[in-house]
Amino acid sequence: MKITVLDNILKANDAIAEEIRAELASHQVLAINLMSSPGAGKTTLLERTVEKVKPQGIRVGIIEGDIETTRDADRLKKFDVPIVQINTGSACHLDANMTKKAVANLDCSQIDILFIENVGNLVCPAEFKIGEDHKVMLLSVTEGDEKPLKYPLMFRESSAMIVNKVDLLQYTNFKMEEAEGNARKINPRLTIFPLSCTTGEGLDAWIDWLKKELEGKRGT
Amino acid sequence: MKITVLDNILKANDAIAEEIRAELASHQVLAINLMSSPGAGKTTLLERTVEKVKPQGIRVGIIEGDIETTRDADRLKKFDVPIVQINTGSACHLDANMTKKAVANLDCSQIDILFIENVGNLVCPAEFKIGEDHKVMLLSVTEGDEKPLKYPLMFRESSAMIVNKVDLLQYTNFKMEEAEGNARKINPRLTIFPLSCTTGEGLDAWIDWLKKELEGKRGT
Repeated sequence: MKITVLDNILKANDAIAEEIRAELASHQVLAINLMSSPGAGKTTLLERTVEKVKPQGIRVGIIEGDIETTRDADRLKKFDVPIVQINTGSACHLDANMTKKAVANLDCSQIDILFIENVGNLVCPAEFKIGEDHKVMLLSVTEGDEKPLKYPLMFRESSAMIVNKVDLLQYTNFKMEEAEGNARKINPRLTIFPLSCTTGEGLDAWIDWLKKELEGKRGT
Repeated sequence: MKITVLDNILKANDAIAEEIRAELASHQVLAINLMSSPGAGKTTLLERTVEKVKPQGIRVGIIEGDIETTRDADRLKKFDVPIVQINTGSACHLDANMTKKAVANLDCSQIDILFIENVGNLVCPAEFKIGEDHKVMLLSVTEGDEKPLKYPLMFRESSAMIVNKVDLLQYTNFKMEEAEGNARKINPRLTIFPLSCTTGEGLDAWIDWLKKELEGKRGT
């Protein structure tokens, strides 16, 4: 019975996610579902990304998913972009129902890229569609290069993987080729961006990818 | 309905967990449920811990919980201690049913401390009792000092928190007092061990705590 219930929940979730995706697409909004372990750097990546794309005229919107607190949203307020906070209470991931309510509180006609920062969790968020065009995951070098093999679903579901904190590479035993090889064993189509949100190294390739995806969304 | 199902699942789980705990107690086995985000250092802590306690005559047993692979168990084979691997398939945490099967494959009369390494996840494992005397969590300094406020349940449920990777403190903006303060706001009774599994700094306090808990278990 447990499996049936879960299956029905996922089907209902996917139907709502598809509604959200269609609504966002009608406004040519590119939606990115940002996922990772706690502390891999999702919010810092958003800070660095908004700093780069806002001066280029790209309008960002953000949905912040957290179990509790508004700390991440508070960090992003300085950018004066629309932010909606979701507090899940105890849920370990966002689902489409939560995102639907958040999207209803945004003026999508004023947004080019919508980032949805998921709850920090390398497992459960990967199971739930929330209306995104792409799932993008972060793996930080301090977590270890074998993680794709141990937590395969998120690596399989993601379009792109950001390998963050490369400024700390020299203090860890993380091997970039090993991480990339392990990730591509799980998902050969994965686009990989090694970068550091602290030094800025590698950020441009990520920004270029976002801009190309946004152009694709607009059909230009 | 979803909530009712979940509530029944948790109650059934807790009943099985209590059976396991009683079985382990009959052999005076101290059981530690080790939890953290992926990559915080659970397996490395086990390596350093076994290296310290085995020469002191303390007999260790290990249950390794992973979604996929036996990589962590493989790392621990060199110590020649009994290890049982649980692969959860897709489940993001261990539950009492899984642990019960694993414990049945161990000779508890030959074990003093049973470490159960949970799936790497800062959220879901905290909800499930699996027969442990203590939940012990790791937070690594690269994850950030605000994590207790954002993921409170695990900090609330744990008896002890290991703050790992203190050798990397100087390369991060992690403040130890801030982390300890945030954790104690959630759980004033939390015992905190800042340490580095790389340099060995701080390990002795953790080992002393384990030995004290083991003595308590034996009623000596």
